[in-house]
Amino acid sequence: MADYKLHCFAESGHSYKAALMLELSGANWEPVFADFMNGALRQPEYLETNEMAEAPVLEHKGTKLSQSGVILDYLSTSLGKFAPGSADERREVLRWILWDNHKMSSQVGLTRFLMNFLPEEKRPEQVIGFMQGRLKAAYTVLDRRLEGRDWVAAEHCTIADFSCCSYLYYPEPFGFDRADWPNIAAWLDRIAAIDGWQHPYDLMPGRT
Amino acid sequence: MADYKLHCFAESGHSYKAALMLELSGANWEPVFADFMNGALRQPEYLETNEMAEAPVLEHKGTKLSQSGVILDYLSTSLGKFAPGSADERREVLRWILWDNHKMSSQVGLTRFLMNFLPEEKRPEQVIGFMQGRLKAAYTVLDRRLEGRDWVAAEHCTIADFSCCSYLYYPEPFGFDRADWPNIAAWLDRIAAIDGWQHPYDLMPGRT
Repeated sequence: MADYKLHCFAESGHSYKAALMLELSGANWEPVFADFMNGALRQPEYLETNEMAEAPVLEHKGTKLSQSGVILDYLSTSLGKFAPGSADERREVLRWILWDNHKMSSQVGLTRFLMNFLPEEKRPEQVIGFMQGRLKAAYTVLDRRLEGRDWVAAEHCTIADFSCCSYLYYPEPFGFDRADWPNIAAWLDRIAAIDGWQHPYDLMPGRT
Repeated sequence: MADYKLHCFAESGHSYKAALMLELSGANWEPVFADFMNGALRQPEYLETNEMAEAPVLEHKGTKLSQSGVILDYLSTSLGKFAPGSADERREVLRWILWDNHKMSSQVGLTRFLMNFLPEEKRPEQVIGFMQGRLKAAYTVLDRRLEGRDWVAAEHCTIADFSCCSYLYYPEPFGFDRADWPNIAAWLDRIAAIDGWQHPYDLMPGRT
């Protein structure tokens, strides 16, 4: 039996943050498919696991944790990898994880969903255009941050990198082109070069 | 001279989280007006303080911190108030702060801005309607959480309460009516009953 179980689905960038951390840390883990697209996360059974109706959820030694940022923080301690090294570094890691939740992953996740997983006639075009404008501001902050730096929050790769990068590996269009953001592009290649890296669609189960 | 300086502005719910924490903890603090509405946060001078171009920023003993969640975490340690009491409680507090950044404050802040601080002819009506739908889902999660509980993340009031509540005290319309959410309404009254509580427009400086 696996030490860690991750309730997740392939399309979820939030899940991918935790899956990538588990995989690159060499954890003994297994995914449990959470069928978001068919509404399974809003069913009473899942709400007992996570009242926020979201993936991922991590199960470890009888504990259930949700929110990717909490899971990453927990795993960096329990696995002893990709962790901040000092109190200052811990705050810097948390700062970028919060920024990611507020300005990057939340808005990329939403925009990608609207552009790719809704029937064309139901796509709210004004919302999509508006969100793409906000995302451009987020890419600007991240690209500027990575100017002359290898990693987002420390001198080494940390859980903050896994948080900020996750949605940017997905192939569906959401208004992000690596060619426009050279520092982000180089950093995505740097993470993908870590031994054991896998694409989200290879690392997590999907509907097919 | 004050021990703590908080770069903030009255309309900013993110700033209010930190201001409320400082005030209710009895800290010796002073606000520094950050003129967001006139674009001051995008100027090079402010970007050196916070490359994320956001308020609040806390200054304390030569350290500058940004992201309200990081500031709240720092203050709960340095002031020894409204802090989680165990590792499990710390994770629960972080879980709700992350949820707030992802699903509540970020979306309330945006919706309120679009509905109240843009000229009427520039308001993107489809975006406003869409965001209000998402906010209804967020209020549902929070109201359900507060069913039979006094506080969001622990048996006592913590920084997670200050994070989640902040935007809900503002008077401008953004699609939230206390009458629809009885558990949230009772909890907002509970926080406002803490000795020293002040409304955001009284606690922080504005343009007038």
